[in-house]
Amino acid sequence: MSQNPIRIGVIGAGRIGKIHAENLATRIPNAQVAAIADVILSAAQETAHRLHIPKAIADYHEILQDDQIDAVAICSSTDTHARIITEAAQAGKHIFCEKPIDHDLRKIDEALAAVEKAGVKLQIGFNRRFDPNFRKVRTMIAEGKIGDLHILRITSRDPAPPPIDYIKVSGGIFLDMTIHDFDMARYLSGSEVEEVFVAGGVMVDKRIGEAGDIDTAVITLRFASGAIGTIDNSRQAVYGYDQRVEAFGSGGMVAVANNTPDTHVYSNAEGVHSAKPLYFFLERYTESFINEMKEFVEAIQKNTLPPVTGIDGRIPVLIGKAAWKSYHEHRPVKLCEVE
Amino acid sequence: MSQNPIRIGVIGAGRIGKIHAENLATRIPNAQVAAIADVILSAAQETAHRLHIPKAIADYHEILQDDQIDAVAICSSTDTHARIITEAAQAGKHIFCEKPIDHDLRKIDEALAAVEKAGVKLQIGFNRRFDPNFRKVRTMIAEGKIGDLHILRITSRDPAPPPIDYIKVSGGIFLDMTIHDFDMARYLSGSEVEEVFVAGGVMVDKRIGEAGDIDTAVITLRFASGAIGTIDNSRQAVYGYDQRVEAFGSGGMVAVANNTPDTHVYSNAEGVHSAKPLYFFLERYTESFINEMKEFVEAIQKNTLPPVTGIDGRIPVLIGKAAWKSYHEHRPVKLCEVE
Amino acid sequence: MSQNPIRIGVIGAGRIGKIHAENLATRIPNAQVAAIADVILSAAQETAHRLHIPKAIADYHEILQDDQIDAVAICSSTDTHARIITEAAQAGKHIFCEKPIDHDLRKIDEALAAVEKAGVKLQIGFNRRFDPNFRKVRTMIAEGKIGDLHILRITSRDPAPPPIDYIKVSGGIFLDMTIHDFDMARYLSGSEVEEVFVAGGVMVDKRIGEAGDIDTAVITLRFASGAIGTIDNSRQAVYGYDQRVEAFGSGGMVAVANNTPDTHVYSNAEGVHSAKPLYFFLERYTESFINEMKEFVEAIQKNTLPPVTGIDGRIPVLIGKAAWKSYHEHRPVKLCEVE
Amino acid sequence: MSQNPIRIGVIGAGRIGKIHAENLATRIPNAQVAAIADVILSAAQETAHRLHIPKAIADYHEILQDDQIDAVAICSSTDTHARIITEAAQAGKHIFCEKPIDHDLRKIDEALAAVEKAGVKLQIGFNRRFDPNFRKVRTMIAEGKIGDLHILRITSRDPAPPPIDYIKVSGGIFLDMTIHDFDMARYLSGSEVEEVFVAGGVMVDKRIGEAGDIDTAVITLRFASGAIGTIDNSRQAVYGYDQRVEAFGSGGMVAVANNTPDTHVYSNAEGVHSAKPLYFFLERYTESFINEMKEFVEAIQKNTLPPVTGIDGRIPVLIGKAAWKSYHEHRPVKLCEVE
Repeated sequence: MSQNPIRIGVIGAGRIGKIHAENLATRIPNAQVAAIADVILSAAQETAHRLHIPKAIADYHEILQDDQIDAVAICSSTDTHARIITEAAQAGKHIFCEKPIDHDLRKIDEALAAVEKAGVKLQIGFNRRFDPNFRKVRTMIAEGKIGDLHILRITSRDPAPPPIDYIKVSGGIFLDMTIHDFDMARYLSGSEVEEVFVAGGVMVDKRIGEAGDIDTAVITLRFASGAIGTIDNSRQAVYGYDQRVEAFGSGGMVAVANNTPDTHVYSNAEGVHSAKPLYFFLERYTESFINEMKEFVEAIQKNTLPPVTGIDGRIPVLIGKAAWKSYHEHRPVKLCEVE
Repeated sequence: MSQNPIRIGVIGAGRIGKIHAENLATRIPNAQVAAIADVILSAAQETAHRLHIPKAIADYHEILQDDQIDAVAICSSTDTHARIITEAAQAGKHIFCEKPIDHDLRKIDEALAAVEKAGVKLQIGFNRRFDPNFRKVRTMIAEGKIGDLHILRITSRDPAPPPIDYIKVSGGIFLDMTIHDFDMARYLSGSEVEEVFVAGGVMVDKRIGEAGDIDTAVITLRFASGAIGTIDNSRQAVYGYDQRVEAFGSGGMVAVANNTPDTHVYSNAEGVHSAKPLYFFLERYTESFINEMKEFVEAIQKNTLPPVTGIDGRIPVLIGKAAWKSYHEHRPVKLCEVE
Repeated sequence: MSQNPIRIGVIGAGRIGKIHAENLATRIPNAQVAAIADVILSAAQETAHRLHIPKAIADYHEILQDDQIDAVAICSSTDTHARIITEAAQAGKHIFCEKPIDHDLRKIDEALAAVEKAGVKLQIGFNRRFDPNFRKVRTMIAEGKIGDLHILRITSRDPAPPPIDYIKVSGGIFLDMTIHDFDMARYLSGSEVEEVFVAGGVMVDKRIGEAGDIDTAVITLRFASGAIGTIDNSRQAVYGYDQRVEAFGSGGMVAVANNTPDTHVYSNAEGVHSAKPLYFFLERYTESFINEMKEFVEAIQKNTLPPVTGIDGRIPVLIGKAAWKSYHEHRPVKLCEVE
Repeated sequence: MSQNPIRIGVIGAGRIGKIHAENLATRIPNAQVAAIADVILSAAQETAHRLHIPKAIADYHEILQDDQIDAVAICSSTDTHARIITEAAQAGKHIFCEKPIDHDLRKIDEALAAVEKAGVKLQIGFNRRFDPNFRKVRTMIAEGKIGDLHILRITSRDPAPPPIDYIKVSGGIFLDMTIHDFDMARYLSGSEVEEVFVAGGVMVDKRIGEAGDIDTAVITLRFASGAIGTIDNSRQAVYGYDQRVEAFGSGGMVAVANNTPDTHVYSNAEGVHSAKPLYFFLERYTESFINEMKEFVEAIQKNTLPPVTGIDGRIPVLIGKAAWKSYHEHRPVKLCEVE
């Protein structure tokens, strides 16, 4: 508390940029938002006004040049991430960057090399690691509560598909959606994924298939530890955002269920009824977005390793590429095949 | 297993008589149904035929006179219980009798005196003690798992009221329905009820009030141990038979929920839905009806005290009388006032 | 959003004052904390510094005299509430005041008269009304989802007793603890309490009894609507803060369970284990504290009736007095007897 | 009820033979056990004595030759099933046979041909279809409650591995254990499995691996409908028998949880605790064993198709063979490859 607050420039004032700006401005005692940039200047201005951020600009380079700013939060479109990481590193800023770093492994590697060279901190926005449910599972596995992990099951289903236009540029389901689950698999298991097998298809909306993507998938992972993982994805669960995990091992099992807006149970002549899961990621992961920023700021202040590193940002992209290869070639694919 | 089976005569072939006859005939290895009696001979005959019972009669005295019969199960109408207990005791038969023994404490006392004198066994049909849920609560309390009991809560709501004609002769809610809960309170707490306070009313059906009864009640019990109990009753829970218990003490709490026909959880766009409780006592207490007979037969074979004694049959009637007095006088009533 | 923010002075920088100051400063977009006062100046200063509040003072009268301040949040000790309400009303400030207003009905009436005369808004801090679980129950009852309310059950158990010194001045369990449940009973039922019966005792700690208080109680309420309510209280639930409600009616039942820090379920050779309830009110009612302030600020800005009025603050004190009378006289007591 | 009871000869008086004999003798009103055979005569005699079965023999051919016997229940060792089915069919007996029919598809086909030729009824012992939980899932899928099935997940974990000696002759995990899940997949989905992919290993006990088997597996199924299935198996869940299903589709999801011996929830200072699943199949599937026999007897009496046919017995063996091939070749395998 006695330290000076970390001064952060937020780059990008879209949906996720607004969330991070608000959390940094109001929920993180040791952080201040010094500036916000967006190519659409009015978007930056609106958020700046609402949150009493002193500076709203169109060109993020002003943030990089500002000596009073310690760190940036990169919330711009994915295709700009790698470049801005590199520039920010060269400017000596610590970096929080939304996932994915890029779809191209070489661009990722260049960005990570720039970070390495500059010696700044880089944290990738895999916010779900900071969710109390999943953190509890990680803690229990790490403490040996379930013994050796044998089977890890991740259920991850969105309430509704994104726009088709987004799907066309997103890298497809494995890079825009499952990428979180690949990260979760590594985080929870504490082991690296070595092989991927995909069974998937277009079941929700034909137009998704026409855009070259799929909307439903069951993915089998093989971990270095020998454990087996499964991820099941759908782009549309009509009952809402379905985010659960189950870890089974030699000593027991731990599972986490969805969060709900309330705990009510209503019994009437028709049956017993309760609340649907929180609708989507803004509601479901409110707390994890705050927590990840707290830990980013803390890592800077205490000069410790950020909890989600550049490598943690790179590997899920690699797994995503292996997943696509497995889907297209209809066989298990080792990660070393796509490296 | 090496012992001769206990030969039992079932008196009464109505709803509850049929259940006991079937359980004794098919589910209790050490028991045989030697005869079944009912004033409506055809009812006795039908059940006898279905269950391969060798003898169906109209007059239960034939059972009492049969030297080959070890015990009787009295399932006739309540007003005959006390008399048949006395006669059966005089005939040297062990006795299982449905609750309540009678509404009149003097008649109960005469029947219990006859049992005492004859030295036969008497078990009263408070079947819920044998339900796995409630038995678990009892065991945990007895093992000290919740420390000293402070608050005991019993929820007991029927799915639908009985016929008005039944209500007119049943002794009212406290003797036809809550009597089970009074027994449960004693059984679970391991302590005697000393005082009763009733808040109740007619909320379900005006005709119940016109018949001199009430249909909704919240009853506060004071136990000799100092613990406090509450029972809440309704003659109509539209979602089905609601039978729950919660025991709170210095070391923790144990609660049991309703049983359901299956464990399904169905999530759709409207919400999350699951099964209603099992509809009524035939479904809910299937197992407890079997268990009580097993233990009755065992008590005879091993010559031990039956698990629900004559006194256990008497006291809930006393509590029921105190409950009515409390309701009418609108004040807490001690049991010694109605003794 | 286009309106000027409401400028609020916080009076009292103890535990609850800090919470309200922080929520107003960081979580309520339309509010600003203009000043904070505490008789212990350093306490006010510390909170002011942490939350960037421009003014920290020892004497709250400076707040009342400040023309730039629209409203006060009274978080000082209970014995000062009525006086400060009166003074604040006379100074033309809108008032948020923590519960209870006072233990003395005449003092409450004087304060409410001052508010009435000044035409300012007064909201009492019954925060639980703003909890998503209880609000859901209220909504469902109000929408007729359970038909006519027959039985309302409130469970309210603290994780540990307060210090004995607090108990000596708190007005006892019915005024320091159950007062919330009395408010909840009125809020959920939408009906006034007419009569109270208490069964209670000292089961947790003898010293509580020596201080003239009790620590365990089961309270039966009679509503004007005819419905029956029960509240069960303990000052010590070893498993944590137990805050549940169940409403049963002619058309169904709605119940809400405790909130937990996560949804994990852990199965091992010993059993199946899950998280305890959130420990105490700071964790459990985080959201309700924010919501009540949001609605207070909104009521000022939109010039509407605050969601918890002065009368809502008065009646639970009356019920608490009736509860004590019932406990001491061991009989049901009507509210008109203590008015 | 008016029909003559079906007279059944039970062949095999081991664990499963005893269960079927007892259920037929005591729980199925329209059935009688006319004889029981076991190569160990004393085993047959003991069960006969306990259940009042008139005839206990060593050679099952006596049953086949007995004109008074309508049907047989084949509960002998797997290697005798196909032969006894053939003989029983030739003797004109209706046949209930435990799973699997055989490990050899040609032997299965010969047995099914004999049944076909004789025109007798054949029901295979996939008892789990008759479990109330799984039946509910089937019903809801069939009624369209979840729309089109997209993902079916079956969890099936035993509480402890069988003896190594059993594993050596059982056909391995896919034929002794997963075979039930393969049947469940077909039953629930209402669609045929076309392809199988296995990820598996030896994680529980090295000796299982030394016996040529595995003990942990995650199996991906592809249905003709396009839906995807997963089965996860372990030979050892330390918390007990884990038998769950989840079906996800375009219109919703239905899931069933484990059954427990009671519904108690115990809260203490350490956490919240509840009952483990019922230990193993004898406890978990008590009801399904009864139900399957009821429906077998009914199919004979009403001359309808048995609910689990010979083909239903054959296909899971085929899937099991494909699973082994997939495991050994580490690739997805189509069923037509092993036909």
